[in-house]
Amino acid sequence: MKDGRPRLALYGLAGIKLVEPGDDLGAIAAEALAANGLALEEGDVLVVAQKIVSKAEGRVIDLASLTPSPRAQELGLRLDKDPRLVEVVLSQSRRIVRERPGLMIVEHRLGFVMANAGVDHSNVAGAEERVLPLPEDPDRSARALQEHLARIFGCRFAVIISDSFGRPHRRGIVGVAIGAAGLPALLDQRGRPDLFGRPLKVTETAFADEIAAAASLVMGQADEGLPMVLVRGLSWSAEESPAAALVRPPEHDLFR
Amino acid sequence: MKDGRPRLALYGLAGIKLVEPGDDLGAIAAEALAANGLALEEGDVLVVAQKIVSKAEGRVIDLASLTPSPRAQELGLRLDKDPRLVEVVLSQSRRIVRERPGLMIVEHRLGFVMANAGVDHSNVAGAEERVLPLPEDPDRSARALQEHLARIFGCRFAVIISDSFGRPHRRGIVGVAIGAAGLPALLDQRGRPDLFGRPLKVTETAFADEIAAAASLVMGQADEGLPMVLVRGLSWSAEESPAAALVRPPEHDLFR
Repeated sequence: MKDGRPRLALYGLAGIKLVEPGDDLGAIAAEALAANGLALEEGDVLVVAQKIVSKAEGRVIDLASLTPSPRAQELGLRLDKDPRLVEVVLSQSRRIVRERPGLMIVEHRLGFVMANAGVDHSNVAGAEERVLPLPEDPDRSARALQEHLARIFGCRFAVIISDSFGRPHRRGIVGVAIGAAGLPALLDQRGRPDLFGRPLKVTETAFADEIAAAASLVMGQADEGLPMVLVRGLSWSAEESPAAALVRPPEHDLFR
Repeated sequence: MKDGRPRLALYGLAGIKLVEPGDDLGAIAAEALAANGLALEEGDVLVVAQKIVSKAEGRVIDLASLTPSPRAQELGLRLDKDPRLVEVVLSQSRRIVRERPGLMIVEHRLGFVMANAGVDHSNVAGAEERVLPLPEDPDRSARALQEHLARIFGCRFAVIISDSFGRPHRRGIVGVAIGAAGLPALLDQRGRPDLFGRPLKVTETAFADEIAAAASLVMGQADEGLPMVLVRGLSWSAEESPAAALVRPPEHDLFR
């Protein structure tokens, strides 16, 4: 490593226009890569912010069009939240895990335990009343984008759809992977010995979550917003697993 | 960004020898940077694995020297764990948060909710029976290392002590910050408007945790182990906060 080259390099793809429902994310990504002087290489990971995936897939709900159910009205009143937003959150969720005024932590129908079912308010152009639920199936979204780009670049790379989650026990949100294709989102290190040949006790690394957290540092540092980040320098040999593998099954979750 | 330079670059410091109790981490870091052709620059973050900090600080406990208390014996039996290890874990903890056979999740006396109080088994040379608790005060360890290196490099950079934690709700461990100096470990984004001028709802980013997660990707990818990683390309203007700021106070923790 005396040549001073980094082991890992993250490129924010500048100049991506505001994505609209129906936009072709694969074409947008290919164009953004080219505009930033980049081509996908073996081992690259393209991290894409959930928000633009939801938008491109038309996952936009106009709160003004909703009539909240009695349950949503009651919850909205109790939690001091817009009952129409509560209605959307409930529609995306299996159940409420924790609640307190201003806060609804739910089990999303995809299994993620998260605030507001990830329903997003910000950055929907000219529409205070429009919100963005998560993509229908973020692993499928990641796969579709990877397949689109593979036709252009023809090498072994991966795609992650990222979001930011709060966490029990620790303050602050961090980037996490809600969709993945082309890499082991969960990396099984069982049996890999440590430096002295003892088997590692730790069995699994949340590989895709660490990549999403790294990309979040780049997405968050730009004032203009950088919804796509290219991560270069990783390698993996383990079998692929989707972001769904990162969900801890409720029966194994001591904090559910 | 058409010059193709990454926004963020991570360098693993290769060639660091096995750290021993009493070693001077500042000197080791300075030497490793030089050996890798690197000098600290404005905005750099040096991420150091907890394990070598604990070792350098002599935080090594020989299990053979311990007589477990009756409580540790009872817990060891119930949880199928070495009662001497349980004794060490209890000595580092305020209380047990969750338990099941093979697993003890505690509230560390520093406030971290973590398995086994972070007491580490692996990579202690030639001593199956020696374990490494966390540093006494990882924020202080980070500060000391930063001050040592500041005398050499004289610029504004930061130091993070990292560890890997499991998490509720999600499978796999991720890198987190247990010590920090020179940056806002918790980044307050209250009031910063989104692209359309609406205040961001999200208030706080776990900046140091995202950096630790990114560094973990580099630490984990090398077979030889890379206990120091240089992260280059970040910037921050917010006030500094220590890693202790990342601990969610129990009274605000809905999952404690």
